[in-house]
Amino acid sequence: MLVLMKAGATEAQIREVCRKIEEMGYKAHPIPGATRTAIGITGNQGPVEAALLDDMPGVGECVPVSKPYKLVARELKEEGTIVDLGGGVLVGGNDLVVAAGPCAIESLEQALTIARSVRAAGARLFRGGAYKPRTSPYSFQGLGEEGLRILSEVRSEAGLKIVTEAVDRESLDLVERYADVIQIGARNMQNFSLLKAAGRAKKPVLLKRGLSATLDEFLMAAEYIMAEGNYRIILCERGVRTFADHTRNTLDLSVVPAVHRLSHLPIIVDPSHGTGRREKVLPLSRAAVAVGADGLIIEVHHKPDQALSDGHQSIFPSQFEHLMRDVRQIAPVLGRSIQ
Amino acid sequence: MLVLMKAGATEAQIREVCRKIEEMGYKAHPIPGATRTAIGITGNQGPVEAALLDDMPGVGECVPVSKPYKLVARELKEEGTIVDLGGGVLVGGNDLVVAAGPCAIESLEQALTIARSVRAAGARLFRGGAYKPRTSPYSFQGLGEEGLRILSEVRSEAGLKIVTEAVDRESLDLVERYADVIQIGARNMQNFSLLKAAGRAKKPVLLKRGLSATLDEFLMAAEYIMAEGNYRIILCERGVRTFADHTRNTLDLSVVPAVHRLSHLPIIVDPSHGTGRREKVLPLSRAAVAVGADGLIIEVHHKPDQALSDGHQSIFPSQFEHLMRDVRQIAPVLGRSIQ
Amino acid sequence: MLVLMKAGATEAQIREVCRKIEEMGYKAHPIPGATRTAIGITGNQGPVEAALLDDMPGVGECVPVSKPYKLVARELKEEGTIVDLGGGVLVGGNDLVVAAGPCAIESLEQALTIARSVRAAGARLFRGGAYKPRTSPYSFQGLGEEGLRILSEVRSEAGLKIVTEAVDRESLDLVERYADVIQIGARNMQNFSLLKAAGRAKKPVLLKRGLSATLDEFLMAAEYIMAEGNYRIILCERGVRTFADHTRNTLDLSVVPAVHRLSHLPIIVDPSHGTGRREKVLPLSRAAVAVGADGLIIEVHHKPDQALSDGHQSIFPSQFEHLMRDVRQIAPVLGRSIQ
Amino acid sequence: MLVLMKAGATEAQIREVCRKIEEMGYKAHPIPGATRTAIGITGNQGPVEAALLDDMPGVGECVPVSKPYKLVARELKEEGTIVDLGGGVLVGGNDLVVAAGPCAIESLEQALTIARSVRAAGARLFRGGAYKPRTSPYSFQGLGEEGLRILSEVRSEAGLKIVTEAVDRESLDLVERYADVIQIGARNMQNFSLLKAAGRAKKPVLLKRGLSATLDEFLMAAEYIMAEGNYRIILCERGVRTFADHTRNTLDLSVVPAVHRLSHLPIIVDPSHGTGRREKVLPLSRAAVAVGADGLIIEVHHKPDQALSDGHQSIFPSQFEHLMRDVRQIAPVLGRSIQ
Repeated sequence: MLVLMKAGATEAQIREVCRKIEEMGYKAHPIPGATRTAIGITGNQGPVEAALLDDMPGVGECVPVSKPYKLVARELKEEGTIVDLGGGVLVGGNDLVVAAGPCAIESLEQALTIARSVRAAGARLFRGGAYKPRTSPYSFQGLGEEGLRILSEVRSEAGLKIVTEAVDRESLDLVERYADVIQIGARNMQNFSLLKAAGRAKKPVLLKRGLSATLDEFLMAAEYIMAEGNYRIILCERGVRTFADHTRNTLDLSVVPAVHRLSHLPIIVDPSHGTGRREKVLPLSRAAVAVGADGLIIEVHHKPDQALSDGHQSIFPSQFEHLMRDVRQIAPVLGRSIQ
Repeated sequence: MLVLMKAGATEAQIREVCRKIEEMGYKAHPIPGATRTAIGITGNQGPVEAALLDDMPGVGECVPVSKPYKLVARELKEEGTIVDLGGGVLVGGNDLVVAAGPCAIESLEQALTIARSVRAAGARLFRGGAYKPRTSPYSFQGLGEEGLRILSEVRSEAGLKIVTEAVDRESLDLVERYADVIQIGARNMQNFSLLKAAGRAKKPVLLKRGLSATLDEFLMAAEYIMAEGNYRIILCERGVRTFADHTRNTLDLSVVPAVHRLSHLPIIVDPSHGTGRREKVLPLSRAAVAVGADGLIIEVHHKPDQALSDGHQSIFPSQFEHLMRDVRQIAPVLGRSIQ
Repeated sequence: MLVLMKAGATEAQIREVCRKIEEMGYKAHPIPGATRTAIGITGNQGPVEAALLDDMPGVGECVPVSKPYKLVARELKEEGTIVDLGGGVLVGGNDLVVAAGPCAIESLEQALTIARSVRAAGARLFRGGAYKPRTSPYSFQGLGEEGLRILSEVRSEAGLKIVTEAVDRESLDLVERYADVIQIGARNMQNFSLLKAAGRAKKPVLLKRGLSATLDEFLMAAEYIMAEGNYRIILCERGVRTFADHTRNTLDLSVVPAVHRLSHLPIIVDPSHGTGRREKVLPLSRAAVAVGADGLIIEVHHKPDQALSDGHQSIFPSQFEHLMRDVRQIAPVLGRSIQ
Repeated sequence: MLVLMKAGATEAQIREVCRKIEEMGYKAHPIPGATRTAIGITGNQGPVEAALLDDMPGVGECVPVSKPYKLVARELKEEGTIVDLGGGVLVGGNDLVVAAGPCAIESLEQALTIARSVRAAGARLFRGGAYKPRTSPYSFQGLGEEGLRILSEVRSEAGLKIVTEAVDRESLDLVERYADVIQIGARNMQNFSLLKAAGRAKKPVLLKRGLSATLDEFLMAAEYIMAEGNYRIILCERGVRTFADHTRNTLDLSVVPAVHRLSHLPIIVDPSHGTGRREKVLPLSRAAVAVGADGLIIEVHHKPDQALSDGHQSIFPSQFEHLMRDVRQIAPVLGRSIQ
């Protein structure tokens, strides 16, 4: 259930309703909206007795939630969530945000070279893995904290926000300290311990869709994070696993309008992992913006043939410029622009 | 193997090479290109003895084909095939073509009403089934030849080219007579008898990708048609079957650049079947144009709630206008426009 | 809707009810059961007016059908259908039937050699394609009618019933004439014209599940055949298409008990196509019998390396003997035996 | 690369080769086999210089490994690995082992009731979750350590070995302390941090296949565990995600012989999760044994309608008895029996 407060409800009234909910043994999640605040209720096994809340001052109405997810549901919050990364970088607003960078951080020089070029082309976030989940235990697993320190320097040197993946509790603590956005990868989308830990972190979370996750499971994974109190979540479509073999994964762009319909959370698209093929990144980036994505996350490498991972799907800086040029022209068709 | 003739090769030289190939027991497929003619060779079990052709006048070079498909391969013909439907309607050229209309032809009035509205919005082809392959034998199976007669009237009344599905040899003969483009549906993509019959038809073929067809199988299906001598084929992506349940099928837009890379054939996208949801047709149509499709095929119905089939995925004429407005703005980003 | 006649209803009463149904504009399908006859009604758009039938002599009750399929439903006929192929070969009864033979008929000598060895090991049906649906138009497409003549000779020489695939109307007519069971292949499972034609044939039909067919679609395909009046259908699971790449297809054995639950039709399993790997045929054959299949269909070739198609999934005659030995021991665990 | 020692190589020679490998900067994994010891080498980026090892006393030959996985490969160890759980319970030997129990541990009484009944029917392991990965954060998540204590009591009271799931580092430490086998669930199959931690644990690991894991990924996940030094791994097929909707997952039994071919590790089958339907557990259990699985893991509940999770796929104790009776008769066909 969720409680929709009246437009003019006071802070005190909201606090009082939350107090009442907690007193009933549940958890209250006040979510401010454009015109009014909604309070999500979690922790209940069965239906919540609405009668106890209905008549409280400031309460507009108590509405049952029709989906298994509550806090991520559009029902809770009509207008889209805007995740503010600071420095004017907003995800989910009218303007799109582009994140770019190498698959893995290899060295300061590599990171800075790429960061400067993607910055010049218009990226606002820098991506790059310090902890790499690899299919083989014998593959390069990332530089670890050293990689995070490099990312931190990239932020100050190149003026980009940083998004990087956390793969367990230890790396999550470090990523939270060094980065601006904590990425949870596709393979960990249902690593519920990690989701809960991310829910207790103080930084926004970029949650990638699992390789065979249904939309409901994807939103429920976000719900795990929100239920712990972290409401700043950016979803990310990165391709799903199908029988099709002309790309590494099948990019499911239809999930973008589907998420926008069911949830207030923003969603960006990763055409690099979504296709696994360099030459498909540009066309699918255009398509992702055209379908309505709130941003892109792109693998860029100045020497992809020497990349320690995923070189075949990284595009060259010049291709990234081309990509930015194209998507800048498509966004206005949807009444949007690129930040 | 294929024989690339020199740029200045004469008609007589081409004929002579074809004659020689037939004499060797094979079939010759001369395919004129922008600068030179290529001759595909089929009917061979093993490698063709190139030495017998290499020295003939006008022959540039004999190149082995690296793919299981030959005639549809980009190797055979560097520039894209343009399928000319007459009346200035070209599929595969610089400009995109949009086909629109109801799932099934229900009556002349229904067909004409929809045809006029989609024509006004910019469609050049009218789609509508006279023969409907339905999962249930008890569902409406189409008006048959009566439907084809209606389509024929739509052509003269509304000035639109007609594309409609053939489901067997009998309907193929009739569709060939009444329509401008013969559609082979997804369920029949590997109905090889039907493909061969379509290969002997004198009208262009719109070949839809099967629900679980790999790219190779899709191109091989087109090869079946070409091997019989019909070189005017338009491919169509219409969604594939996956575990994802937020759409009826998963629209695989990455297949568009993949087809363009491997084949010279044009490919259009059907976001109506590709999503099965009315509200997803607009965003996925934008994405299809942005990814580089050569056209769209859209289900439009003025009274979708009364449609005899697929009403839930048909858009309203006003939504179609909106769609056309959007895609007209996206095409120029790729240096293209809508016919 | 279906009409369940009383246990003691006379032939005349059944005829009278059918006559009444036809008079109402529908089609009547009387299906005799162990204790009483059920009459399926098709051809109705909405609900049938039961009141008109309820009081007729011999009518037990009129029951609405809860599934999209009617005639194939277990609701229509509680006991399993037994398809009698003549000569004591029954599919769907207590005992299992094994069909075996090469992928394609290559010559009389090849066919007879294999037929004799599989007959000796206990097969009762001989399989072998005269019409082969192949992904490539350049692959061996079968011997056609010559292949059917060979099959016919195999029947008299080796005393085996014959099952072979029809791919279109022409081949269906010939297969109906020469063979004992008409096979409809996976690629044609939704070739509705072919299904209807098979429904008008006088021979039993072996219907293979499509590569991405849901259970409902599979049963609806059988419904197409039954709706035309051919009630002798054997279903066949032959693997579905998934992301898994260690086998050619993923054999879905769970469909066997699912079919038995929902339908009265028998179902056999094809582990040769279901795995595409010779060394997997034996274990999956054991599993198919253990799961409750009504039979097996196995590719056997005495010289698989020289087979014109599917050699890699054909087992040797000695392996087939081993297979028969194993399944003969497993069947009794389910209270069954191998015919 | 791996070093195959001679049949008569001494312990000292093996130690010396390992020392040499470590000196070269790699990690040595001596794996004793029936007739000789193999030493896996990991930690190398490129090829290992075999010449330095070839001539050492006791070395038979140095063989390159042809697969991405090394330690789990059949190449390393020709005979199957037998995981000894103590008390005479062996997984992977000639005899099959059956694990059974509820989805989640709910109370001591529930656990003991079920444990006694499955013990009586022949189960040797007791399964039951104390930590439950659930799609929804609002679903019952297990009793945690309290559940582990109950499992511990079940062991002493009912004389069954205990297998239960660990979902993160904390629970892994506890599960290692209380249980006999540490289960890694399907959703965590590529939670590499957890895999590494399991690789450092002193108890055997039951590793479930991920919902969309290829065979290579499955084996690589096991390789993560072995690379850390824990060689006692039991694989488990539990169904994969496909388009098919008549079962919750599609049980892929072909992976059993595929694992046996490529790896020396034992593999058991979970038909409860593999189908998600009570009535399919018996037939698929029979099939799993017939295909060659080294054991089964079955959800059993005496009051499934009151189960806190997965009640619809839990079978009744009487059904479990029936199941054991059936599989006891099938195992001998493969020359095996049930422990």
